Amino acid sequence: MQLHKRDVVEAATTLLDTYGIADLTMRRLARELDVSPGALYWHFANKQQLLGAVADRILDGVPSATGVVDVCNRLRDALLSHTDGAELVSASFAAGQSEAMTGVLARLTEAAAEAGVDSAHAELAARTVVYYVLGFTADEQSRLQWDAAGAELPGEQSVLTEDPSARFAFGLHLLVNGIAVHSDSVVGGRD
Amino acid sequence: MQLHKRDVVEAATTLLDTYGIADLTMRRLARELDVSPGALYWHFANKQQLLGAVADRILDGVPSATGVVDVCNRLRDALLSHTDGAELVSASFAAGQSEAMTGVLARLTEAAAEAGVDSAHAELAARTVVYYVLGFTADEQSRLQWDAAGAELPGEQSVLTEDPSARFAFGLHLLVNGIAVHSDSVVGGRD
Repeated sequence: MQLHKRDVVEAATTLLDTYGIADLTMRRLARELDVSPGALYWHFANKQQLLGAVADRILDGVPSATGVVDVCNRLRDALLSHTDGAELVSASFAAGQSEAMTGVLARLTEAAAEAGVDSAHAELAARTVVYYVLGFTADEQSRLQWDAAGAELPGEQSVLTEDPSARFAFGLHLLVNGIAVHSDSVVGGRD
Repeated sequence: MQLHKRDVVEAATTLLDTYGIADLTMRRLARELDVSPGALYWHFANKQQLLGAVADRILDGVPSATGVVDVCNRLRDALLSHTDGAELVSASFAAGQSEAMTGVLARLTEAAAEAGVDSAHAELAARTVVYYVLGFTADEQSRLQWDAAGAELPGEQSVLTEDPSARFAFGLHLLVNGIAVHSDSVVGGRD
Protein backbone atom coordinates (compact mmCIF):
# COMPACT_ATOMS: atom_id res chain seq x y z
CA MET A 1 0.00 0.00 0.00
CA GLN A 2 1.44 3.38 -0.98
CA LEU A 3 1.96 5.89 1.80
CA HIS A 4 0.81 9.35 0.72
CA LYS A 5 2.35 12.47 2.23
CA ARG A 6 -1.15 13.79 2.89
CA ASP A 7 -1.97 10.73 5.02
CA VAL A 8 1.22 11.16 7.03
CA VAL A 9 0.35 14.78 7.81
CA GLU A 10 -3.20 13.76 8.72
CA ALA A 11 -1.99 11.06 11.11
CA ALA A 12 0.58 13.45 12.62
CA THR A 13 -2.16 16.03 13.25
CA THR A 14 -4.32 13.40 14.95
CA LEU A 15 -1.36 12.37 17.16
CA LEU A 16 -0.81 16.04 18.04
CA ASP A 17 -4.45 16.63 18.94
CA THR A 18 -4.66 13.45 21.01
CA TYR A 19 -1.34 13.37 22.84
CA GLY A 20 0.36 16.75 22.34
CA ILE A 21 3.60 17.82 20.71
CA ALA A 22 5.87 15.86 23.08
CA ASP A 23 4.47 12.58 21.74
CA LEU A 24 4.67 13.60 18.09
CA THR A 25 7.79 11.64 17.16
CA MET A 26 8.73 9.96 13.87
CA ARG A 27 8.87 6.59 15.65
CA ARG A 28 5.43 6.97 17.19
CA LEU A 29 3.96 8.21 13.92
CA ALA A 30 5.39 5.25 12.01
CA ARG A 31 3.82 2.91 14.56
CA GLU A 32 0.42 4.60 14.17
CA LEU A 33 0.65 4.28 10.38
CA ASP A 34 1.97 0.72 10.64
CA VAL A 35 5.01 1.51 8.48
CA SER A 36 8.74 1.55 9.15
CA PRO A 37 10.25 4.91 10.22
CA GLY A 38 12.18 4.80 6.93
CA ALA A 39 8.93 5.14 4.99
CA LEU A 40 8.32 8.51 6.66
CA TYR A 41 11.78 9.80 5.74
CA TRP A 42 10.88 9.26 2.10
CA HIS A 43 8.42 12.17 2.52
CA PHE A 44 10.18 14.22 5.22
CA ALA A 45 13.95 14.58 5.57
CA ASN A 46 13.61 15.24 9.31
CA LYS A 47 11.16 16.00 12.07
CA GLN A 48 11.38 19.77 11.44
CA GLN A 49 9.99 19.26 7.93
CA LEU A 50 7.19 17.11 9.27
CA LEU A 51 6.28 19.73 11.89
CA GLY A 52 6.34 22.38 9.15
CA ALA A 53 3.84 20.35 7.12
CA VAL A 54 1.59 19.95 10.17
CA ALA A 55 1.88 23.72 10.79
CA ASP A 56 0.80 24.36 7.20
CA ARG A 57 -2.20 22.06 7.64
CA ILE A 58 -3.19 23.84 10.87
CA LEU A 59 -2.86 27.25 9.18
CA ASP A 60 -4.75 26.27 6.05
CA GLY A 61 -6.47 29.39 4.68
CA VAL A 62 -4.96 31.85 7.18
CA PRO A 63 -2.53 33.44 4.66
CA SER A 64 -5.47 34.32 2.39
CA ALA A 65 -6.88 36.70 5.04
CA THR A 66 -6.30 40.44 4.49
CA GLY A 67 -5.51 43.22 6.95
CA VAL A 68 -3.64 42.96 10.23
CA VAL A 69 -6.65 42.31 12.48
CA ASP A 70 -8.23 39.69 10.21
CA VAL A 71 -4.94 37.82 9.67
CA CYS A 72 -4.19 37.84 13.40
CA ASN A 73 -7.64 36.72 14.50
CA ARG A 74 -7.59 33.84 12.04
CA LEU A 75 -4.06 32.92 13.08
CA ARG A 76 -5.06 32.81 16.76
CA ASP A 77 -8.21 30.78 16.02
CA ALA A 78 -6.20 28.26 13.98
CA LEU A 79 -3.56 27.86 16.73
CA LEU A 80 -6.21 27.34 19.42
CA SER A 81 -7.93 24.66 17.33
CA HIS A 82 -5.14 22.11 17.82
CA THR A 83 -3.40 20.84 20.96
CA ASP A 84 -0.08 22.68 21.37
CA GLY A 85 -0.83 24.50 18.09
CA ALA A 86 0.93 27.70 19.17
CA GLU A 87 4.05 25.84 20.29
CA LEU A 88 4.24 23.79 17.10
CA VAL A 89 3.73 26.76 14.78
CA SER A 90 6.19 28.91 16.76
CA ALA A 91 8.85 26.22 16.39
CA SER A 92 8.13 25.81 12.67
CA PHE A 93 8.22 29.56 12.16
CA ALA A 94 11.57 29.89 13.93
CA ALA A 95 12.96 27.03 11.83
CA GLY A 96 11.63 28.59 8.61
CA GLN A 97 9.75 25.38 7.82
CA SER A 98 6.20 26.67 7.49
CA GLU A 99 5.14 28.01 4.08
CA ALA A 100 1.89 29.22 5.62
CA MET A 101 3.76 31.35 8.17
CA THR A 102 5.86 32.78 5.34
CA GLY A 103 2.54 33.71 3.73
CA VAL A 104 1.20 35.21 6.96
CA LEU A 105 4.37 37.30 7.29
CA ALA A 106 4.00 38.47 3.68
CA ARG A 107 0.36 39.53 4.26
CA LEU A 108 1.29 41.46 7.43
CA THR A 109 4.27 43.07 5.68
CA GLU A 110 1.95 44.24 2.90
CA ALA A 111 -0.51 45.58 5.48
CA ALA A 112 2.27 47.49 7.29
CA ALA A 113 3.49 48.94 3.98
CA GLU A 114 -0.07 49.97 3.09
CA ALA A 115 -0.32 51.66 6.49
CA GLY A 116 2.70 53.73 5.46
CA VAL A 117 5.67 51.91 7.02
CA ASP A 118 8.76 52.32 4.82
CA SER A 119 10.02 49.22 3.07
CA ALA A 120 13.08 48.92 5.33
CA HIS A 121 10.82 48.48 8.35
CA ALA A 122 7.59 46.89 7.05
CA GLU A 123 8.82 43.33 7.50
CA LEU A 124 10.12 44.14 11.00
CA ALA A 125 6.73 45.60 11.93
CA ALA A 126 5.09 42.43 10.59
CA ARG A 127 7.39 40.25 12.68
CA THR A 128 6.60 42.28 15.79
CA VAL A 129 2.92 41.50 15.24
CA VAL A 130 3.69 37.80 14.65
CA TYR A 131 5.72 37.56 17.88
CA TYR A 132 2.86 39.14 19.78
CA VAL A 133 0.25 36.76 18.32
CA LEU A 134 2.38 33.66 18.88
CA GLY A 135 3.35 34.76 22.41
CA PHE A 136 -0.19 35.69 23.44
CA THR A 137 -1.69 32.54 22.01
CA ALA A 138 0.96 30.18 23.42
CA ASP A 139 0.25 31.64 26.85
CA GLU A 140 -3.52 31.46 26.39
CA GLN A 141 -3.29 27.87 25.13
CA SER A 142 -1.09 26.76 28.04
CA ARG A 143 -3.68 28.05 30.46
CA LEU A 144 -6.57 26.46 28.57
CA GLN A 145 -4.78 23.12 28.48
CA TRP A 146 -3.82 23.30 32.16
CA ASP A 147 -7.41 24.15 33.04
CA ALA A 148 -8.62 21.21 30.95
CA ALA A 149 -6.12 18.95 32.72
CA GLY A 150 -7.53 20.12 36.06
CA ALA A 151 -4.23 21.65 37.16
CA GLU A 152 -4.36 24.29 39.85
CA LEU A 153 -3.16 27.70 38.81
CA PRO A 154 -2.37 30.46 41.28
CA GLY A 155 -5.39 32.68 41.97
CA GLU A 156 -4.18 35.70 40.01
CA GLN A 157 -3.79 33.63 36.85
CA SER A 158 -7.43 32.57 36.68
CA VAL A 159 -8.62 36.18 36.89
CA LEU A 160 -6.43 37.04 33.91
CA THR A 161 -8.15 34.54 31.66
CA GLU A 162 -11.25 36.75 31.55
CA ASP A 163 -12.33 37.60 28.03
CA PRO A 164 -9.14 36.59 26.20
CA SER A 165 -10.49 37.87 22.86
CA ALA A 166 -10.83 41.41 24.21
CA ARG A 167 -7.36 41.13 25.73
CA PHE A 168 -5.96 39.90 22.44
CA ALA A 169 -7.63 42.75 20.54
CA PHE A 170 -6.21 45.34 22.95
CA GLY A 171 -2.62 44.30 22.30
CA LEU A 172 -3.22 44.27 18.55
CA HIS A 173 -4.68 47.75 18.84
CA LEU A 174 -1.48 48.97 20.56
CA LEU A 175 0.60 47.49 17.74
CA VAL A 176 -1.55 48.94 14.97
CA ASN A 177 -1.34 52.36 16.64
CA GLY A 178 2.41 52.01 17.06
CA ILE A 179 2.71 51.20 13.36
CA ALA A 180 0.61 54.25 12.47
CA VAL A 181 2.81 56.53 14.62
CA HIS A 182 5.96 55.13 13.04
CA SER A 183 4.56 55.76 9.57
CA ASP A 184 3.66 59.34 10.46
CA SER A 185 7.10 60.03 11.90
CA VAL A 186 8.82 58.64 8.81
CA VAL A 187 6.76 60.19 6.02
CA GLY A 188 5.90 63.38 7.96
CA GLY A 189 2.19 62.65 8.22
CA ARG A 190 -0.20 61.22 5.66
CA ASP A 191 -3.59 62.40 4.60
CA MET B 1 24.19 14.99 53.44
CA GLN B 2 21.42 17.56 53.40
CA LEU B 3 20.06 18.55 49.99
CA HIS B 4 19.54 22.30 49.79
CA LYS B 5 16.93 23.79 47.48
CA ARG B 6 19.59 26.18 46.18
CA ASP B 7 21.79 23.25 45.11
CA VAL B 8 18.88 21.60 43.29
CA VAL B 9 18.19 24.79 41.31
CA GLU B 10 21.90 25.14 40.54
CA ALA B 11 22.14 21.57 39.24
CA ALA B 12 18.92 22.00 37.22
CA THR B 13 20.35 25.14 35.59
CA THR B 14 23.54 23.29 34.69
CA LEU B 15 21.49 20.45 33.16
CA LEU B 16 19.49 23.02 31.18
CA ASP B 17 22.60 24.77 29.87
CA THR B 18 24.28 21.51 28.94
CA TYR B 19 21.47 19.43 27.48
CA GLY B 20 18.45 21.73 26.97
CA ILE B 21 14.96 21.79 28.41
CA ALA B 22 13.92 18.39 26.98
CA ASP B 23 16.48 16.65 29.20
CA LEU B 24 15.59 18.60 32.33
CA THR B 25 13.54 15.93 34.09
CA MET B 26 13.14 15.17 37.80
CA ARG B 27 14.60 11.69 37.24
CA ARG B 28 17.67 12.97 35.42
CA LEU B 29 18.19 15.71 37.98
CA ALA B 30 18.01 13.21 40.85
CA ARG B 31 20.62 11.08 39.10
CA GLU B 32 22.96 14.08 38.66
CA LEU B 33 22.59 14.94 42.35
CA ASP B 34 22.93 11.29 43.37
CA VAL B 35 19.69 11.36 45.38
CA SER B 36 16.34 9.60 45.00
CA PRO B 37 13.64 11.45 43.00
CA GLY B 38 11.67 11.60 46.26
CA ALA B 39 14.33 13.89 47.75
CA LEU B 40 13.57 16.47 45.03
CA TYR B 41 9.85 16.38 45.74
CA TRP B 42 10.61 17.48 49.28
CA HIS B 43 11.61 20.85 47.76
CA PHE B 44 9.37 20.97 44.68
CA ALA B 45 5.84 19.56 44.51
CA ASN B 46 6.16 19.05 40.76
CA LYS B 47 8.26 19.83 37.72
CA GLN B 48 6.42 23.13 37.09
CA GLN B 49 7.59 24.42 40.47
CA LEU B 50 11.15 23.36 39.70
CA LEU B 51 11.07 25.13 36.30
CA GLY B 52 9.68 28.22 38.04
CA ALA B 53 12.63 28.23 40.43
CA VAL B 54 15.06 27.84 37.51
CA ALA B 55 13.26 30.71 35.71
CA ASP B 56 13.68 32.89 38.81
CA ARG B 57 17.39 32.07 38.94
CA ILE B 58 17.77 32.94 35.23
CA LEU B 59 15.92 36.23 35.75
CA ASP B 60 17.80 37.23 38.89
CA GLY B 61 17.91 41.02 39.02
CA VAL B 62 15.70 41.66 35.98
CA PRO B 63 12.65 42.79 38.01
CA SER B 64 14.75 45.51 39.65
CA ALA B 65 15.22 47.28 36.29
CA THR B 66 13.08 50.37 35.62
CA GLY B 67 11.37 51.61 32.47
CA VAL B 68 10.05 49.51 29.59
CA VAL B 69 13.19 49.52 27.47
CA ASP B 70 15.57 48.70 30.34
CA VAL B 71 13.35 45.90 31.70
CA CYS B 72 12.94 44.39 28.22
CA ASN B 73 16.62 44.55 27.31
CA ARG B 74 17.61 42.89 30.57
CA LEU B 75 14.90 40.28 30.14
CA ARG B 76 16.11 39.43 26.63
CA ASP B 77 19.77 39.27 27.76
CA ALA B 78 18.87 36.95 30.64
CA LEU B 79 16.87 34.61 28.37
CA LEU B 80 19.67 34.42 25.81
CA SER B 81 22.22 33.56 28.53
CA HIS B 82 20.80 30.06 29.09
CA THR B 83 20.01 27.24 26.68
CA ASP B 84 16.26 27.24 25.93
CA GLY B 85 15.92 30.16 28.39
CA ALA B 86 13.05 31.78 26.45
CA GLU B 87 11.12 28.52 26.21
CA LEU B 88 11.58 27.72 29.91
CA VAL B 89 10.60 31.20 31.10
CA SER B 90 7.61 31.34 28.71
CA ALA B 91 6.32 28.05 30.13
CA SER B 92 6.87 29.21 33.72
CA PHE B 93 5.16 32.53 33.00
CA ALA B 94 2.14 30.80 31.47
CA ALA B 95 1.94 28.48 34.48
CA GLY B 96 2.22 31.40 36.90
CA GLN B 97 5.22 29.74 38.55
CA SER B 98 7.86 32.45 38.19
CA GLU B 99 7.98 35.12 40.88
CA ALA B 100 10.52 37.04 38.81
CA MET B 101 8.11 37.22 35.84
CA THR B 102 5.40 38.46 38.21
CA GLY B 103 7.89 41.16 39.20
CA VAL B 104 8.70 41.96 35.55
CA LEU B 105 4.99 42.28 34.79
CA ALA B 106 4.55 44.59 37.81
CA ARG B 107 7.42 46.84 36.64
CA LEU B 108 6.01 47.05 33.10
CA THR B 109 2.50 47.71 34.45
CA GLU B 110 3.90 50.59 36.53
CA ALA B 111 5.74 51.93 33.49
CA ALA B 112 2.55 51.80 31.36
CA ALA B 113 0.60 53.56 34.10
CA GLU B 114 3.30 56.23 34.34
CA ALA B 115 3.06 56.67 30.56
CA GLY B 116 -0.62 57.47 31.08
CA VAL B 117 -2.40 54.17 30.41
CA ASP B 118 -5.51 53.92 32.59
CA SER B 119 -5.48 51.32 35.37
CA ALA B 120 -7.94 49.05 33.53
CA HIS B 121 -5.48 48.65 30.66
CA ALA B 122 -2.01 49.10 32.16
CA GLU B 123 -1.57 45.42 32.98
CA LEU B 124 -2.82 44.42 29.50
CA ALA B 125 -0.31 46.79 27.90
CA ALA B 126 2.42 45.24 30.07
CA ARG B 127 1.42 41.73 28.98
CA THR B 128 1.51 42.78 25.33
CA VAL B 129 5.11 43.87 25.83
CA VAL B 130 5.95 40.60 27.63
CA TYR B 131 4.45 38.49 24.82
CA TYR B 132 6.51 40.42 22.30
CA VAL B 133 9.77 39.99 24.26
CA LEU B 134 9.21 36.27 24.90
CA GLY B 135 8.13 35.66 21.28
CA PHE B 136 10.99 37.61 19.74
CA THR B 137 13.59 36.05 22.01
CA ALA B 138 12.31 32.48 21.65
CA ASP B 139 12.58 32.90 17.87
CA GLU B 140 16.03 34.49 18.09
CA GLN B 141 17.24 31.78 20.46
CA SER B 142 15.96 28.96 18.24
CA ARG B 143 17.95 30.38 15.35
CA LEU B 144 21.07 30.86 17.43
CA GLN B 145 20.86 27.30 18.74
CA TRP B 146 20.19 25.86 15.29
CA ASP B 147 23.13 27.82 13.92
CA ALA B 148 25.32 26.53 16.76
CA ALA B 149 24.17 22.99 16.00
CA GLY B 150 25.20 23.50 12.37
CA ALA B 151 21.66 23.01 11.07
CA GLU B 152 20.86 24.44 7.67
CA LEU B 153 18.24 27.13 7.63
CA PRO B 154 16.55 28.36 4.48
CA GLY B 155 18.40 31.30 2.92
CA GLU B 156 15.86 33.95 3.81
CA GLN B 157 16.15 33.08 7.49
CA SER B 158 19.86 33.81 7.72
CA VAL B 159 19.41 37.30 6.27
CA LEU B 160 16.84 38.02 8.94
CA THR B 161 19.28 37.36 11.75
CA GLU B 162 21.15 40.58 10.93
CA ASP B 163 21.50 42.91 13.90
CA PRO B 164 18.92 41.28 16.20
CA SER B 165 19.35 44.02 18.83
CA ALA B 166 18.23 46.72 16.38
CA ARG B 167 15.32 44.51 15.30
CA PHE B 168 14.35 43.96 18.92
CA ALA B 169 14.52 47.68 19.65
CA PHE B 170 12.31 48.50 16.64
CA GLY B 171 9.44 46.30 17.86
CA LEU B 172 9.73 47.74 21.36
CA HIS B 173 9.59 51.21 19.85
CA LEU B 174 6.32 50.33 18.07
CA LEU B 175 4.84 49.10 21.36
CA VAL B 176 5.98 52.14 23.34
CA ASN B 177 4.47 54.41 20.67
CA GLY B 178 1.26 52.38 20.68
CA ILE B 179 1.04 52.75 24.45
CA ALA B 180 1.58 56.52 24.14
CA VAL B 181 -1.21 56.81 21.54
CA HIS B 182 -3.58 54.80 23.72
CA SER B 183 -2.84 57.07 26.69
CA ASP B 184 -3.47 60.21 24.63
CA SER B 185 -6.76 58.85 23.28
CA VAL B 186 -7.99 57.94 26.78
CA VAL B 187 -6.99 61.01 28.76
CA GLY B 188 -7.34 63.48 25.90
CA GLY B 189 -3.66 64.30 25.68
CA ARG B 190 -1.13 64.91 28.43
CA ASP B 191 1.34 67.67 28.92
